[in-house]
Amino acid sequence: MNQEIRTDLALEVKERFQEDNVEVKGVVLEEQEKADGKIRISTVEITDRHGAQVMRKPIGRYVTLEMQTLLQIGSEEQEMLSSEVGEQLRQLLRHKGCSKVLVVGLGNREVTPDSLGPRVADQLLITRHLLREYGSGFLQKNLSGMAGKKEVELSAVAPGVMAQTGMEAVEIVQGIVREIQPDLVIAIDALAARSVARVTTTVQLTDTGICPGAGIGNNRRALNEESIGCPVIAIGVPTVVDAATIVRDSMEQLLQEQGYSKREIELFLESMDSMKGVDTMFVTPKSIDEAIGSVSEILAEGINQCFFFGSEA
Amino acid sequence: MNQEIRTDLALEVKERFQEDNVEVKGVVLEEQEKADGKIRISTVEITDRHGAQVMRKPIGRYVTLEMQTLLQIGSEEQEMLSSEVGEQLRQLLRHKGCSKVLVVGLGNREVTPDSLGPRVADQLLITRHLLREYGSGFLQKNLSGMAGKKEVELSAVAPGVMAQTGMEAVEIVQGIVREIQPDLVIAIDALAARSVARVTTTVQLTDTGICPGAGIGNNRRALNEESIGCPVIAIGVPTVVDAATIVRDSMEQLLQEQGYSKREIELFLESMDSMKGVDTMFVTPKSIDEAIGSVSEILAEGINQCFFFGSEA
Amino acid sequence: MNQEIRTDLALEVKERFQEDNVEVKGVVLEEQEKADGKIRISTVEITDRHGAQVMRKPIGRYVTLEMQTLLQIGSEEQEMLSSEVGEQLRQLLRHKGCSKVLVVGLGNREVTPDSLGPRVADQLLITRHLLREYGSGFLQKNLSGMAGKKEVELSAVAPGVMAQTGMEAVEIVQGIVREIQPDLVIAIDALAARSVARVTTTVQLTDTGICPGAGIGNNRRALNEESIGCPVIAIGVPTVVDAATIVRDSMEQLLQEQGYSKREIELFLESMDSMKGVDTMFVTPKSIDEAIGSVSEILAEGINQCFFFGSEA
Amino acid sequence: MNQEIRTDLALEVKERFQEDNVEVKGVVLEEQEKADGKIRISTVEITDRHGAQVMRKPIGRYVTLEMQTLLQIGSEEQEMLSSEVGEQLRQLLRHKGCSKVLVVGLGNREVTPDSLGPRVADQLLITRHLLREYGSGFLQKNLSGMAGKKEVELSAVAPGVMAQTGMEAVEIVQGIVREIQPDLVIAIDALAARSVARVTTTVQLTDTGICPGAGIGNNRRALNEESIGCPVIAIGVPTVVDAATIVRDSMEQLLQEQGYSKREIELFLESMDSMKGVDTMFVTPKSIDEAIGSVSEILAEGINQCFFFGSEA
Repeated sequence: MNQEIRTDLALEVKERFQEDNVEVKGVVLEEQEKADGKIRISTVEITDRHGAQVMRKPIGRYVTLEMQTLLQIGSEEQEMLSSEVGEQLRQLLRHKGCSKVLVVGLGNREVTPDSLGPRVADQLLITRHLLREYGSGFLQKNLSGMAGKKEVELSAVAPGVMAQTGMEAVEIVQGIVREIQPDLVIAIDALAARSVARVTTTVQLTDTGICPGAGIGNNRRALNEESIGCPVIAIGVPTVVDAATIVRDSMEQLLQEQGYSKREIELFLESMDSMKGVDTMFVTPKSIDEAIGSVSEILAEGINQCFFFGSEA
Repeated sequence: MNQEIRTDLALEVKERFQEDNVEVKGVVLEEQEKADGKIRISTVEITDRHGAQVMRKPIGRYVTLEMQTLLQIGSEEQEMLSSEVGEQLRQLLRHKGCSKVLVVGLGNREVTPDSLGPRVADQLLITRHLLREYGSGFLQKNLSGMAGKKEVELSAVAPGVMAQTGMEAVEIVQGIVREIQPDLVIAIDALAARSVARVTTTVQLTDTGICPGAGIGNNRRALNEESIGCPVIAIGVPTVVDAATIVRDSMEQLLQEQGYSKREIELFLESMDSMKGVDTMFVTPKSIDEAIGSVSEILAEGINQCFFFGSEA
Repeated sequence: MNQEIRTDLALEVKERFQEDNVEVKGVVLEEQEKADGKIRISTVEITDRHGAQVMRKPIGRYVTLEMQTLLQIGSEEQEMLSSEVGEQLRQLLRHKGCSKVLVVGLGNREVTPDSLGPRVADQLLITRHLLREYGSGFLQKNLSGMAGKKEVELSAVAPGVMAQTGMEAVEIVQGIVREIQPDLVIAIDALAARSVARVTTTVQLTDTGICPGAGIGNNRRALNEESIGCPVIAIGVPTVVDAATIVRDSMEQLLQEQGYSKREIELFLESMDSMKGVDTMFVTPKSIDEAIGSVSEILAEGINQCFFFGSEA
Repeated sequence: MNQEIRTDLALEVKERFQEDNVEVKGVVLEEQEKADGKIRISTVEITDRHGAQVMRKPIGRYVTLEMQTLLQIGSEEQEMLSSEVGEQLRQLLRHKGCSKVLVVGLGNREVTPDSLGPRVADQLLITRHLLREYGSGFLQKNLSGMAGKKEVELSAVAPGVMAQTGMEAVEIVQGIVREIQPDLVIAIDALAARSVARVTTTVQLTDTGICPGAGIGNNRRALNEESIGCPVIAIGVPTVVDAATIVRDSMEQLLQEQGYSKREIELFLESMDSMKGVDTMFVTPKSIDEAIGSVSEILAEGINQCFFFGSEA
């Protein structure tokens, strides 16, 4: 197996082993379909340290929602996926009984494929200041879908990226968390996938936080319960493929088709380290602007539904 | 005197008393001109509690730079004003020997006249992450203007407004300050002036922080040394006039011209409280977009010069 | 009557006469309520040259939709208003049997209250290039709501403002119209109202085009059938009140309350021409960003419904 | 030679032949260095139909300015490059004596690497409306650098992309050109390069207009003198590499290093057509936002200098 393939999706890491017909101890995969097969839900559970080491991801639950096609704003599929995001989020935080939630929109608003986090944050129903100013009961009175639900203080921040602020996103979030003491942080970020087909068609939700090096920006320090002191659910959507990964992957596929042996291919790929410049590049769809538009709506709608409009969490 | 006039400029509060020919104990005004009279520099010093009470502003130094005309990007005047902003900033922080500076760009990036703070933050030379990654000496080596200057770790954040985040800006800044421990915070904000002529032609620098209720957004809690634990210099530019203020002020002027007595005018103005709706509005120039563009360049350039390119602080 | 009051709403011009208890020959007003009184629909019909002269607006039909309250995104009221915009648009263009529609989003994208037109254009269902590339039948196949409707080639452009382009918007639109030969132009623009309460709560649709000097930008040349050679429906929403208007209007109201005579008030107001600077300013709500967001969604949704999703036009 | 490599730079097409040691009839290459070798200027002249056919580019002059490194805003290199852009532009339009210039900023403002054109247009000195309103002599009086220069009516438009407007950019430009009758159009666009190292470090100026299929957007119809009826100078900067190109190119390089024969490599690459999805993707640097910022400043500054501030054209 080639270790250098870069992906933020646990599902893609798992698939890598399946290609090699390897069972991994400490890693459980479950799959189901919903909506007449239009949404595929895969859950990768990393249950122990062995699984974590092999998968190179922390112990925890990784839920992946995949649509068959690119999403269009206003479509029926978009609504289905929003509801499913809300539902999966609800399941991930069950028993956590959170009442103060901080959403962190990671990424750079000025770079289209990295703007997912800030754009989700823009579309959330922010309630913390309302409940603090007008008291509990305010949402019950003003939001018709709230009947019987606990009123959640939702706040949100888009901390920017290091080149803009001089600070790591995790430093900013740590400071804010210490100040406002949420009982849950939800981090939204653009991810890197290995497969072009997964870009903007897949949502990953996990209770492990965001791992270092994710997506386009270099969030070098992890944003997780250990670093910030409260549970972190991360929601991500692949918006890019690493340029080196796409080159490497396309090559591997071609060499396989040409009948080269596994060993030959590995040697060949090892010789690629000299691809100067490619490591600072990413690959993204030509239609990334519209895709970010619809995907950010879906995530924001899913989060809003989970806390304010759906059935009791 | 009519107390309800709303202005964030200490100079305008002072002028109000001068109109009434009142000397205020504890308030000292100094004026000078530079650049053949093109820039007027007024310093209002509030020296004691009496002055602070009468002026309704904290004890401290308020420096106002006024240009005769609206500023145009790329003009000679713009460069002069940048240099003067840098120079006045240098004077305000003299003896403070700061080496870790956090710039806070207050306001709402999406509302043109309130976007000054975020747009200044965008244009700063961010160095904190560079010095932390590449070590001291990095700026000396890479910035030609640095010769002999102390290398300052500059970071910046645009915390957004409460309707977007659910948090007061000061909560976010408090958290970040506790985390990264700067020895100076510079807060940039759009201000409200009383006079239409001062909108986007005037810069106020003060060592007192930002007072509650400034500008367009409602930053209800002060951002000052008391609230965040480190010195705060605030730099602001009026970008709006309160709609109620402009109505009230225009009326007062007209009534004076009509020969009404001071007492009659006061009674008249008191009857205005019923102007429904006007209190949620602001007045701003039709050309506010270009004006914010040039003014944000001037402030960013002034701050960059102060720390990285000018003569030794 | 004071002629200087500035408003782009025919309804407000009409009201001005009603205040004075004047019947205007050549001007017919009809009013109705919908949705349990939540939407008030007023139709001002200017039927002859006398009416046009007195109203200072071209002969034609001006439909005004008024909501009782500010609109919130995602609310039931928003959907009702969208449908009503679609319905009224359908009525205005009845018998015109258009199949090639160009939407022109007037205004400056960078100035929040002037960005309505460009932001509506961003959210339309653009079909011209699809029908040209994939042939007629494409929309029938791909848009479920289209059943039985004529397939309309919709195109859109945001021509910018003169300070950005050096050209009048009407010059750009003339050129494009000559090139692509639409049979209908729909012009979207931010308007100026006289009443603060109408800002972002009112929609005006008219079949007369856009009159010179509307809104914030100075569209000095009219965009109408005469200037561009095809019918022009204009849809506008007040987003500002002229600063001079608000001062003048507040004053008039106060002087009336103080018992001054009509004649005295007029003399008083005439003395106001010296309010230097105010004529280059506008007044807009502090929450204009969110308001533009929801209003632009409403208009875009209404236009999309009219052509692609509602019942047969 | 592999025909499928996609590049908008004539220089890269030429290099392709040089790799193969082929002289191309009808194509002349000249190279020079400036600024102590910091800027390399290459001029590819396609002089006849044979050259045009082989190069797959129209007859004309293609000037390429290359910097050794990525550009930083405010740096000395930036100023040098601006001046050189202005100088080369002046040379390209010599003897054309233009007095009415329309700049067209092609591309999609919402997709970072495609936003070059609109962002250049934003930063130009727009003079057409000023000269029309205030008469000739206005610029002489108000721009100090103008002494002795002809006053040029500069206008600019960012026509958007087909998915936003439903129209091809060339249709919009044709219409505007017919309306305002410029004697020169300058089209700015983001280009695709073959080499990662050329992205945002290279500027191409040509007097042939923009060829179909350039950059990210699909400007399928050419914008040139033939299509719009006045001379077109195109200025472009590579901001992306086609994803298929980068895969293909990386592979070719590796296979060469592995000692495969030219013939084997060709066969291998032909088998790549099945790379599903990659053809809708592009590759761009992680720092594309800042790079577009500095490059758009350089081009705008160069154009402004050419017409308004430099020595006589």
